[in-house]
Amino acid sequence: MERFIYFDHAAATPMDARVFEVMEPYFMDAYANPTSIYKFAQKSRSAIERAREKIAEFLQTEPREIIFTSGGTESNNLFIFGAAEVLQKYGRHIITSQIEHDSVIEPLKRLETKGFEVTYLDVGEDGLVKAQDVKKALRDDTILVTIMFANNEIGTIQPIAEIGEVIAEFRKTKKVTSTEHHLYPYFHTDACQAAPYLDISVKPLGIDAMTLNGGKIYGPKGVGALFIKTGTPIMPQLFGGGQEHRMRAGTENVAGIVGFGRALELVQSARVEESQRLLVLRDRLINGLLQAIPRSRVNGDLHKRLPNNVNVSFYGLEGEAILLRLDMIGVAASAGSACAASSLEPSHVMRALGLSDQWTHSATRFTMGHGNTHEEVDFVLKNLPGIIKELREVSPFA
Amino acid sequence: MERFIYFDHAAATPMDARVFEVMEPYFMDAYANPTSIYKFAQKSRSAIERAREKIAEFLQTEPREIIFTSGGTESNNLFIFGAAEVLQKYGRHIITSQIEHDSVIEPLKRLETKGFEVTYLDVGEDGLVKAQDVKKALRDDTILVTIMFANNEIGTIQPIAEIGEVIAEFRKTKKVTSTEHHLYPYFHTDACQAAPYLDISVKPLGIDAMTLNGGKIYGPKGVGALFIKTGTPIMPQLFGGGQEHRMRAGTENVAGIVGFGRALELVQSARVEESQRLLVLRDRLINGLLQAIPRSRVNGDLHKRLPNNVNVSFYGLEGEAILLRLDMIGVAASAGSACAASSLEPSHVMRALGLSDQWTHSATRFTMGHGNTHEEVDFVLKNLPGIIKELREVSPFA
Repeated sequence: MERFIYFDHAAATPMDARVFEVMEPYFMDAYANPTSIYKFAQKSRSAIERAREKIAEFLQTEPREIIFTSGGTESNNLFIFGAAEVLQKYGRHIITSQIEHDSVIEPLKRLETKGFEVTYLDVGEDGLVKAQDVKKALRDDTILVTIMFANNEIGTIQPIAEIGEVIAEFRKTKKVTSTEHHLYPYFHTDACQAAPYLDISVKPLGIDAMTLNGGKIYGPKGVGALFIKTGTPIMPQLFGGGQEHRMRAGTENVAGIVGFGRALELVQSARVEESQRLLVLRDRLINGLLQAIPRSRVNGDLHKRLPNNVNVSFYGLEGEAILLRLDMIGVAASAGSACAASSLEPSHVMRALGLSDQWTHSATRFTMGHGNTHEEVDFVLKNLPGIIKELREVSPFA
Repeated sequence: MERFIYFDHAAATPMDARVFEVMEPYFMDAYANPTSIYKFAQKSRSAIERAREKIAEFLQTEPREIIFTSGGTESNNLFIFGAAEVLQKYGRHIITSQIEHDSVIEPLKRLETKGFEVTYLDVGEDGLVKAQDVKKALRDDTILVTIMFANNEIGTIQPIAEIGEVIAEFRKTKKVTSTEHHLYPYFHTDACQAAPYLDISVKPLGIDAMTLNGGKIYGPKGVGALFIKTGTPIMPQLFGGGQEHRMRAGTENVAGIVGFGRALELVQSARVEESQRLLVLRDRLINGLLQAIPRSRVNGDLHKRLPNNVNVSFYGLEGEAILLRLDMIGVAASAGSACAASSLEPSHVMRALGLSDQWTHSATRFTMGHGNTHEEVDFVLKNLPGIIKELREVSPFA
């Protein structure tokens, strides 16, 4: 077999064989619609509820606070549109950051066309949102704050608990003019990238809502969840049957939900160990590349960073060209978010770091995972410096 | 093993082993995010496009007119909300029937709260929408018509082609005041139940949009499609990455889409033969029950009816009680839509037939499929008359 090194786990993960194993019975055997009343349907129904309980356990919250969706994008859209719709009578101001995923940014842009006002917080060169900036941006008419837990491109881990505290403090100081008034702003975090590596217990984070995604945690694509704290008001966005406590209509994706529950259990149970293992690979790759390649830099804070994320720039080059050369030697990496991979423009995340074009255009992301080894890192360390050298010899900007 | 007879294929279908087979490689092997640029991602990308082409082939339309979604509910919601949003500047009147699926009815009810006006066409005791009633309901400000192809509870097949003609004629007679003006009303049909048995070529039907669902055609749950004719204006409802021609954001459910494509191919290729086979079972069960059980009736037209649908009422009884007794002897049947199965009220479909409570409350649905046999029908014919007799002996209304 040809050499193949997969360094793009932030874009998609292979399914864990142990996830596949628990999903399989729900395709051809326990196939009933969970809502049906006969005994046979109990198998589908209880499988979903067991998955919900398992997820609630890792989030240290209640099963009724977990809604299954078709993925991270739907969860983000459901929370943002759903909460904005209910809360617009109180205010129309929303706080977010400049480096959120497209499935947060794009819904917010839609809301801007409908009279909402959105503050997009700057991040510094370190790619970190500052809790004090959230504090300064909070207003009486702020209804939502949505800040991702860890960034998908540069892997920076945001100070969610600190922001949660700032928001909790702010709520206390608000003049209470109605019973609901003091409860907002509500705080949401997109934890799709954080879930395999960080503690996602919701209480210490001070959050009201959290997005999770099966396809980024060695589970199935096309299934996700939204944690939504009891009392956080949202309007459903899909209407029909009464599934998911009437919050999300549509016949449940039983196999997908079962697989998602198992996947979250597996990554969360192994997260400390796996983080330690990946951290070594990550730092080996970062340090090796910076040492071997002149005019190279790491994008995003080096320490407040996911253990599997390497995002490096090589002054003056095009990320696209680097990726194609890596692909030729069997290495799968990416320039930024896969969701925007077809665009040749640098991502909004890279632009937000405030670097010059020569840096932003050459950003190259390696995101590691389960199967990756020291040998694979060494293969990149052995080959990438030569590739960069060659590309620079023919580049007008380097 | 205990006896188990599954007669609830309208609620959910077991996955066809041939569907499972084509899905399997996309879980653990070809797992890349289809949007990524390296060669490995080409496998995911081309798998999706092959599925899209296959589906377009059976619909006799273009691949670019197929959008993958998370199921029938999302497809119906996407079309209704998406088209209403764009077209509201032209008009706010929508035509539908009283017997649509909840995932059509509920979005329309939402639109009513936002200033839209919906005409819910009556059906007669036969459960059929009349094309002439659509004609009478059409107005200059009618922007959408949505009528299901075949009903999920009583199996009645609606005159879609005839309605399509009525709408086409109406469009021609409209005063054209702008370039877009003459194109609406747009015509949508929910074909989730029709797909395994009827010809779904879109041109002869005169439709602009069609909903399909993987979970009702021996494919995976949690995946569906919306056919939307080029030029039919809709606003996306999920925002984020640029997937599905920018019409539906979210990482594609690759395995699900592949399975859905294969499932549609399999049911459509076998539909004539399978319809003939099931028709015999259906009529054997209907005739047998009507003969053996006094004060029984079939709900919905006997001829314009899906070949797998038996919906019978037993005067004076509760459907719930009948289902529990059937469950005890290993027969899975249902009262109405699984999506509303937890409610004890008769469904809106049964109420629309205009029958007395003694009939509507006792509706019992048997929907047949792949594995069902003459022996299974005979088992019900042998046992149900006794069950009905016993229940009537203790019922105050029978």
